[in-house]
Amino acid sequence: MAWNTDLRWRLPLTCLLLQVALVVLFGVFVRYHPDADAHWADQKAAGNVSSDLDNEFYYRYPSFQDVHVMIFVGFGFLMTFLQRYGFSAVGFNFLLAAFGIQWALLMQGWFHSFQGGYILLGVENLINADFCVGSVCVAFGAVLGKVSPVQLLIMTLFQVTLFSVNEFILLNLLEVKDAGGSMTIHTFGAYFGLMVAWILQRPNLQHSKGRQSSVYHSDLFAMIGTLFLWMYWPSFNSAVSNHGDAQHRAAINTYCSLAACVLTTVAVSSAVHKKGKLDMVHIQNATLAGGVAVGTAAEMMLMPYGSLIVGFICGIVSTLGFEYLTPFLEARLRIQDTCGIHNLHALPGIIGAIVGAVTAACASADVYGKSGLVHAFDFEGDKQSWTPSMQGKFQAAGLFVSLAMALVGGAVVGVILKIPVWGQAADENCFDDAIYWEGCSRRHLPSTRRGLRTASSLQMPENTALHPEDSALKTSEP
Amino acid sequence: MAWNTDLRWRLPLTCLLLQVALVVLFGVFVRYHPDADAHWADQKAAGNVSSDLDNEFYYRYPSFQDVHVMIFVGFGFLMTFLQRYGFSAVGFNFLLAAFGIQWALLMQGWFHSFQGGYILLGVENLINADFCVGSVCVAFGAVLGKVSPVQLLIMTLFQVTLFSVNEFILLNLLEVKDAGGSMTIHTFGAYFGLMVAWILQRPNLQHSKGRQSSVYHSDLFAMIGTLFLWMYWPSFNSAVSNHGDAQHRAAINTYCSLAACVLTTVAVSSAVHKKGKLDMVHIQNATLAGGVAVGTAAEMMLMPYGSLIVGFICGIVSTLGFEYLTPFLEARLRIQDTCGIHNLHALPGIIGAIVGAVTAACASADVYGKSGLVHAFDFEGDKQSWTPSMQGKFQAAGLFVSLAMALVGGAVVGVILKIPVWGQAADENCFDDAIYWEGCSRRHLPSTRRGLRTASSLQMPENTALHPEDSALKTSEP
Amino acid sequence: MAWNTDLRWRLPLTCLLLQVALVVLFGVFVRYHPDADAHWADQKAAGNVSSDLDNEFYYRYPSFQDVHVMIFVGFGFLMTFLQRYGFSAVGFNFLLAAFGIQWALLMQGWFHSFQGGYILLGVENLINADFCVGSVCVAFGAVLGKVSPVQLLIMTLFQVTLFSVNEFILLNLLEVKDAGGSMTIHTFGAYFGLMVAWILQRPNLQHSKGRQSSVYHSDLFAMIGTLFLWMYWPSFNSAVSNHGDAQHRAAINTYCSLAACVLTTVAVSSAVHKKGKLDMVHIQNATLAGGVAVGTAAEMMLMPYGSLIVGFICGIVSTLGFEYLTPFLEARLRIQDTCGIHNLHALPGIIGAIVGAVTAACASADVYGKSGLVHAFDFEGDKQSWTPSMQGKFQAAGLFVSLAMALVGGAVVGVILKIPVWGQAADENCFDDAIYWEGCSRRHLPSTRRGLRTASSLQMPENTALHPEDSALKTSEP
Repeated sequence: MAWNTDLRWRLPLTCLLLQVALVVLFGVFVRYHPDADAHWADQKAAGNVSSDLDNEFYYRYPSFQDVHVMIFVGFGFLMTFLQRYGFSAVGFNFLLAAFGIQWALLMQGWFHSFQGGYILLGVENLINADFCVGSVCVAFGAVLGKVSPVQLLIMTLFQVTLFSVNEFILLNLLEVKDAGGSMTIHTFGAYFGLMVAWILQRPNLQHSKGRQSSVYHSDLFAMIGTLFLWMYWPSFNSAVSNHGDAQHRAAINTYCSLAACVLTTVAVSSAVHKKGKLDMVHIQNATLAGGVAVGTAAEMMLMPYGSLIVGFICGIVSTLGFEYLTPFLEARLRIQDTCGIHNLHALPGIIGAIVGAVTAACASADVYGKSGLVHAFDFEGDKQSWTPSMQGKFQAAGLFVSLAMALVGGAVVGVILKIPVWGQAADENCFDDAIYWEGCSRRHLPSTRRGLRTASSLQMPENTALHPEDSALKTSEP
Repeated sequence: MAWNTDLRWRLPLTCLLLQVALVVLFGVFVRYHPDADAHWADQKAAGNVSSDLDNEFYYRYPSFQDVHVMIFVGFGFLMTFLQRYGFSAVGFNFLLAAFGIQWALLMQGWFHSFQGGYILLGVENLINADFCVGSVCVAFGAVLGKVSPVQLLIMTLFQVTLFSVNEFILLNLLEVKDAGGSMTIHTFGAYFGLMVAWILQRPNLQHSKGRQSSVYHSDLFAMIGTLFLWMYWPSFNSAVSNHGDAQHRAAINTYCSLAACVLTTVAVSSAVHKKGKLDMVHIQNATLAGGVAVGTAAEMMLMPYGSLIVGFICGIVSTLGFEYLTPFLEARLRIQDTCGIHNLHALPGIIGAIVGAVTAACASADVYGKSGLVHAFDFEGDKQSWTPSMQGKFQAAGLFVSLAMALVGGAVVGVILKIPVWGQAADENCFDDAIYWEGCSRRHLPSTRRGLRTASSLQMPENTALHPEDSALKTSEP
Repeated sequence: MAWNTDLRWRLPLTCLLLQVALVVLFGVFVRYHPDADAHWADQKAAGNVSSDLDNEFYYRYPSFQDVHVMIFVGFGFLMTFLQRYGFSAVGFNFLLAAFGIQWALLMQGWFHSFQGGYILLGVENLINADFCVGSVCVAFGAVLGKVSPVQLLIMTLFQVTLFSVNEFILLNLLEVKDAGGSMTIHTFGAYFGLMVAWILQRPNLQHSKGRQSSVYHSDLFAMIGTLFLWMYWPSFNSAVSNHGDAQHRAAINTYCSLAACVLTTVAVSSAVHKKGKLDMVHIQNATLAGGVAVGTAAEMMLMPYGSLIVGFICGIVSTLGFEYLTPFLEARLRIQDTCGIHNLHALPGIIGAIVGAVTAACASADVYGKSGLVHAFDFEGDKQSWTPSMQGKFQAAGLFVSLAMALVGGAVVGVILKIPVWGQAADENCFDDAIYWEGCSRRHLPSTRRGLRTASSLQMPENTALHPEDSALKTSEP
């Protein structure tokens, strides 16, 4: 079948139509939050605001910037591990995120910040939009190298919508807590992405396997992404928590979980190798699982040792996943998960949901203080009679809703993306920047040296010309 | 003509003389702002300050750090796209900025923070010094690869002075608003740099064209620069705005403009390629134009949809500029603009000035609130009788003053830099780290694969030895 | 002697045992600081806390994130200059820091935050733990390339303990000020590391010299580290200072010192080269010395010109050290200092201690204000009768204590690490990722082009196969 990857009208038209629509919708619906409106001066004059420092900007902007870096540099560069797909990894991530945050401001705005016919835009909206796009970046990880930028824009359009609906159900209807998005971002995003990847499975992907691996310097570029995700995750998990102790505690819990996760990732990575050597794939990815898994519970009284335990477990689970589960899923279930998101976002996301449910169920006025308990779980208004045990049950329900939304939504979107009109490349042309970027050669097929454990890595093609950097620095070792 | 690039006494002497002069001048003139002076404790004891949180440090330090990253990593790495000039790009940017911020603290200090014979140094001075140096980084982009570090220090010395004079005229005499520097930083910096580049035009630059392009990994290094500039631009445009709503609004407007800019950049980049492929030059540069163009208006009530429209337009203008205008300017006007700053800073800067003027002229008490209007445009004291319409006219005047200052100043400085004593390299030795850096080979001339559209790219020299990474990854494609 | 680098049980066991021990100790000892405890809501209800903004989180979290980036990206990437050791540099730094911050939270917690049987964890603890680990990163620089990850974990275990003891002696017993750690972090960390390196000296290291150098792109990766360290150092030196003016002043002083340092580093680097060319080793490292040397005095009334002078001197001292002192120390004293930490941390650390002592001794109520003087040096309680002169003497004593602790501690730990059971590589297998990382080739020995000036660089081995990137981009130049 012919795969036409000439995007000369499809990509420009898609981008322009989407952007024009966004401008119109913003014109109709979006205005400034009072904290960002020039009437703030009048509010101060009237005595309704005591000090400029009360402006939400000062509470949340530093965290916002950290989250922003995670979305654009963290995810963008983490996915540059592919030796010939760096431009697409960081470039398409840039594109889908720039579109996604605008569409998310609308979608989430309609659900959460709609007042008097307008969406009132403040820094908290910007953070939530970045969160929403985070789930799309997660899904991108599963299909990386096998989709066109037009498919990514379509996927973003739908996934942001589904995310917002799911988020509304969880946070407003079920009224669960999920500050760091273990359920709404990671579990949802991962299973959505895996379902899409399964629908779009490519029967002859082994013809591109030579490029589905890293080279020395692409692994170092990916570490830039890994480290910015790892370092800023405390901001991610605390960015939308209540002012004061909740933001403070969420940062601490995340810091602890991530630190423990590194130790156990290194331990397992070494233990599964015949000669105890470390695998960059594990260090780049599994070290982050601890951040995912405390997403829900970070703002709760998880206790520092509780966070360490969560991170401890996740490093093990995630690394074993990369080593054994991903090849299994590819061989048996034909889930071609490029970045192994199942090990970093799906499983740790589920762990995070469980940890959140249990931690909530175990809450008490002794641990939280009387006002603290009410404040932490919003046990007021229509939740006034809730007990921690109820909260825990609803937290668990939130996990199942997210899973259902992800799988059903992913199936529908997968079918839409399968239509052969979006400029996707043929199976033998995957993982290759030359398809969509000017100035990249297509002649050489470098030898595969390093990559995720995949079922088809045994069927690597014979290499006629080696990539010089490869031969100089890397050969497979027993 | 012999070009002596041995800088063994000229560079050390220049650096040492400048630094000694700075130490002396700081000793005579610079002291701490009260917020950074130990007498703050006495102020608190006397009741003049209610809380440590009133200290300007807490309002502005996070934004300062983001701006700082943009200057040193953002600009520094964006310019590492050149395959053999990465050390000079990031290293010389480091040098001129480290000198420039010190000289700017003095120059701007004399103009704005001079009290009782002293310049009082606080975090706002640090931000403004970084802003000033930003305009030098912009100008560096035009002459990148064709000047010696001594020339850059001389250029910085004069440009910082001219910037400060221009800034004083605009902000203190014309009393315009330009928080994000569309006029004072981008328009001024770009036309200054282009004028210098025009004066320093090199008739035989085609002999170096083989190096005036990128390779696969240099393009990825450049994306680090691009992303840090893009992500932190909301901080840049809000860093010196009024506390509270203005900082908040400026961040939001910038975020929106930049997001829209990415979509239209991708659209045009794909549309102008025969097969719809994207060009890294566009993605690295034109995606930033939206940030430049809301520099002036970001703190005004531009409205989110207004910001989207500005970004939408700039992505188109900037990308078309890279594709068609820069080669035209080089072929017809002999403006050899290495980084294409005309498309990223000059044109969007002018757009930003116009947007600012129009937005100011359209301001009203309905939109801003009564106090808000006064507060946003400082309609008090000697500006008490101003109307928004007057403000708009003065904004426009500010653009013309900046242009005049840039062109005249650039001509004078260009003539000074043309004197063949500063260690500049010959035409055939441009874009080569080996001239100024130890340990870089000069033997090979890699094939040119990717670069700005230039008039002389047709006259590429025959390549005797190909750069291995080039041959492996890149060949020109029709 | 056979060097068994198969870490298959040693590394996993070490990591798992350490992490389990940490979980248990956290479970027994670590709880949340009140600012991070849910009881904060009750405190507000009771009127003990007026506003959420009083939470320590808002004073210190932005600075914490900057420090965190310096530890993981700054140090991690600065050490990727080695052409074949990038994975280990950034990966092992990641591992030792993730372990170190947990162990430091306990050690420093027992010394400083122990109340009612618990260590109360807040953002200030996180910052101090990062500081402590900073000293381990410094020591890592001396032994980089010559130790196994198990040795690094053992070194971290002991060094964090010694650091905490030293810190307690200086800050609690001698009651000196050292906000930026010139003594506790840099002097201590550097001499500890140099002593360990001396004990572990390798008689046949010249067999690995071919790899103890950089290539073009590894130097650019290292500049990422350099710049993030340089830009965020103002946060590092101000992160634990008193609220208000002290944090503000420390940031300003550091900014000034670092700027001056760049100018003199470039000056000396050019002056010591026959043809005035710059050396990336100097630009990557010596430009940072100014930050080290104002560590102690940054929060004092050093005055901006004082900071410039300190930076001015350090750029010269540090660059001359890289050029002449390090080869001398290697040839004569057999101190094999991979990263030249003696020039960046040891000497500038001593300078910083002296500058701190002198600045403290010169303090007066005129300069600081009456309350300011008391507040800056804690001249209350048991220090009520102290004079600035006394403070200066104690500051100097702090330097000697740190030196003694470093040298004695380094000797003991060096002896422990010399036991040939930790999986260290043989002399001819140093600086090679292939020893500990999967997928890295060992066949080629690239030509050495660039590296620290070492005594044995004359004894480079004959190169059978050149690294293509090397031959294309670099040859030694006279």
